[in-house]
Amino acid sequence: MSRANREVLAPALAALLGDGWRRPGEASHALADAVRALVVDGRLAARTRVPSERALSAELGISRGAVSRAYDRLREDGFLLSARGAGSWLTLPASAGGAATARVPPLPSGDDADSIRSLDLSIAALPAPDPLVAHAAERAVAVLPRHLAGHGYTAAGLPALRAAVAARLTERGLATTADEVLVTSGAQHALNLVLGLLAGPGERVLVDAPAYPRTLAAIRAARARAVPVPLGARGWDAGAWADTIRAASPRLAVTVADFHNPTGLTMSAAARETIATTCARAGTVLVVDETCAELRLDGPALPPPLGSFGPPGAVITIGTMSKSAWGGVRVGWIRATARTVRELAALRATVDMSSPVLDQLLAVELFKDWDAVVASRRSLLKSRRNALAASLAEHAPTWHVPRVHGGLSFWVRLPGPDATRLAAAAAREGLLVVPGPAFSVDGTFERHLRLPFTLPPEDLDAAVSRLAALAPASEEGQAFEAPVAEAV
Amino acid sequence: MSRANREVLAPALAALLGDGWRRPGEASHALADAVRALVVDGRLAARTRVPSERALSAELGISRGAVSRAYDRLREDGFLLSARGAGSWLTLPASAGGAATARVPPLPSGDDADSIRSLDLSIAALPAPDPLVAHAAERAVAVLPRHLAGHGYTAAGLPALRAAVAARLTERGLATTADEVLVTSGAQHALNLVLGLLAGPGERVLVDAPAYPRTLAAIRAARARAVPVPLGARGWDAGAWADTIRAASPRLAVTVADFHNPTGLTMSAAARETIATTCARAGTVLVVDETCAELRLDGPALPPPLGSFGPPGAVITIGTMSKSAWGGVRVGWIRATARTVRELAALRATVDMSSPVLDQLLAVELFKDWDAVVASRRSLLKSRRNALAASLAEHAPTWHVPRVHGGLSFWVRLPGPDATRLAAAAAREGLLVVPGPAFSVDGTFERHLRLPFTLPPEDLDAAVSRLAALAPASEEGQAFEAPVAEAV
Repeated sequence: MSRANREVLAPALAALLGDGWRRPGEASHALADAVRALVVDGRLAARTRVPSERALSAELGISRGAVSRAYDRLREDGFLLSARGAGSWLTLPASAGGAATARVPPLPSGDDADSIRSLDLSIAALPAPDPLVAHAAERAVAVLPRHLAGHGYTAAGLPALRAAVAARLTERGLATTADEVLVTSGAQHALNLVLGLLAGPGERVLVDAPAYPRTLAAIRAARARAVPVPLGARGWDAGAWADTIRAASPRLAVTVADFHNPTGLTMSAAARETIATTCARAGTVLVVDETCAELRLDGPALPPPLGSFGPPGAVITIGTMSKSAWGGVRVGWIRATARTVRELAALRATVDMSSPVLDQLLAVELFKDWDAVVASRRSLLKSRRNALAASLAEHAPTWHVPRVHGGLSFWVRLPGPDATRLAAAAAREGLLVVPGPAFSVDGTFERHLRLPFTLPPEDLDAAVSRLAALAPASEEGQAFEAPVAEAV
Repeated sequence: MSRANREVLAPALAALLGDGWRRPGEASHALADAVRALVVDGRLAARTRVPSERALSAELGISRGAVSRAYDRLREDGFLLSARGAGSWLTLPASAGGAATARVPPLPSGDDADSIRSLDLSIAALPAPDPLVAHAAERAVAVLPRHLAGHGYTAAGLPALRAAVAARLTERGLATTADEVLVTSGAQHALNLVLGLLAGPGERVLVDAPAYPRTLAAIRAARARAVPVPLGARGWDAGAWADTIRAASPRLAVTVADFHNPTGLTMSAAARETIATTCARAGTVLVVDETCAELRLDGPALPPPLGSFGPPGAVITIGTMSKSAWGGVRVGWIRATARTVRELAALRATVDMSSPVLDQLLAVELFKDWDAVVASRRSLLKSRRNALAASLAEHAPTWHVPRVHGGLSFWVRLPGPDATRLAAAAAREGLLVVPGPAFSVDGTFERHLRLPFTLPPEDLDAAVSRLAALAPASEEGQAFEAPVAEAV
């Protein structure tokens, strides 16, 4: 019954692979590792038909036999299925994470006690702020009976939660009313709804380079086309944005202005003003993902929210409780004009109807303790950020680690273009880390790793020490480059 | 910033409208009412560009002035926006439900005490089984602290919930293991995930005619094409399924085999066997939505679950707690092969990551009381079904009401093709009801209304009496037709 549902042609696969996969030795092993990484990162979806051996060998300039052996390897590891006349297509193996496979599936179950302490640096998420969540849940349950006489469907969200989100946004400097808020199941869900309403197939969506992998995956799933604009070491290049908007007429632009994922950069007030205005003039809807906006650890105060710049309605703001409270609470939001919120609510009713009442009540209660909730996240992240920085300085002194003043991770720069190989080698030892190319549309960022500082310090230290031991020694003539300028 | 994102061409709009919208008197009023109904039902999405006045008047054979006046009316009511050079596109008005507009948006907030008692027959949903949900929530909160040390992401669902779903499916006659279960946010979400994994743009999806409107909306959103196969008065026509599968080679087929929405029909064991086998042979994945499978009120025992027919893996089963427990619990599931579940979990991580931990724990607790939960639904539905039947017999004796032995609604047959007009007239008086064409891909079923029996008996009686008063008198020569055979 399994069968391909989409296809990646040889030139597209070659572009996704970039050149980072090539390494001395048997090409089939390197190619299989690289394709496996694309599947595990979600850059290639399950049920995607792969090119014929002949087409891929021609495209990559390696022997057909090498491609054939790479495909055999992927089949053995459970990442490839084939049927006579239907070609071969990608899938996911039953047990991943073992020695034979590169990685476990993206999101291990939260119920698995082992996964909590495993060296999984692929997820940037903290345990819950306990007992704040437990207490909020008790209060939510006490309120629940008031809602049981209704049918339980809340397309735009419980009014109390919409009001609480609006109040918090207003407090942060983005004046908002409850009818400008749609409650969603987190920021990823919010982005998918915005794409579903606004971006038709083939339309262009401006993204940062690098960008969060699931942002790129959502754009692909909407069959829209991501158009990357590079982030400089100091941040957003408003001129490059204007040029790209002129050239590509993107329908949407998606960015993370506060503690950008993965770089940790924050957009200056001047860039906010220019970029919001440029987008508004061109009719490009600017979508800002504020997932990390509450996670300032130190450094300068944040500029006003990006949504407060530009003409009214020019910016759509997405937010979530996942990082500022806990990932197990699936409450996010979209802030847009009241009209757009109505349109999104109607669309949402065809996607998944509405959010659960109890989880929304829990979110309302968490907002009542919001300062304490966020403070607990910040203090934990601050100590872990410092611990990871210390471990990196000790075990990997040739890696460049730009300082960050907020968010959840470092965007580490390696001495050489080794990220995919390093991640594959680490995965074989049960250490999961996301290599730079997962954050790109074209296989770039082979010199980068995203290292979240969300695990306990002893785990972070063990992970870094193992990674550093696996990293290739700096090559001759490839001395450590001057550090890029500090973020923010 | 609002702008069209898709387009409905004049022939497609004419097909959606069918002929049911035409009525004596001013054509512009009738056309505006009918277009409004398409938007409110979700058959036309917000941000869809409408045809030019010239093109639509030619297609419908009415004057251009009439189309122009209809568009003016829609603009006044807040359903249409226009901009020079960009044409006109549909939207949703700020306040709906008043005298000037046809209806409120699809899902009013569950927090609004008024909406609970309003005469809204557009939603087939009950209040929660209290105190069972309240008690289950208390137990869920007691268990929650055990999960707070994890990151809270559960891509395939909490293991305890996957196991509980598998156990219940097994009890019902569909042997299932936990790794064959993906937890979703309800059945609509489940269907969207299955479509996202399996149905590419332009691919065909076989559906029943009539079918649940949000099933059709999900297929449209996936840019796949619904191919309807008529349901007869006695149910599924296995021969017509085989012919359609041969002619259209659909990638998927979606059906509701137990207490079908809207007809209340149940598929016989013989039809299950034939249809599952036919689909499997053709490589058409059969998706069965079991939303109402637990809601048998009386009559013959149900055949074994459709998923237990055909070769292993041939059928994907979708289920939900929304109707058998409460709509405010957003827990559903997909039962498929373990491989397909892994692929769906990876897709889900790009859609909305995972379901909330607390809501999943609530669902686990509800399964512990499952017999009591379902019994409370059944007894409430049984008395309300009987009450609605009695009200219909009293106030609308010329309407045909096929008996149903389960589910949530009657598929009422009117003496004439008046459903759209009747629904529009009722909406102007604040009574919401979904006309037959919302359940079709081509504007058919103008003789049908879906009437859920989920409101309290006094509300059902008031609604039916008002509807009957608004219905046109039976026309000369259009006597009441012989009742169709009884369902099941």
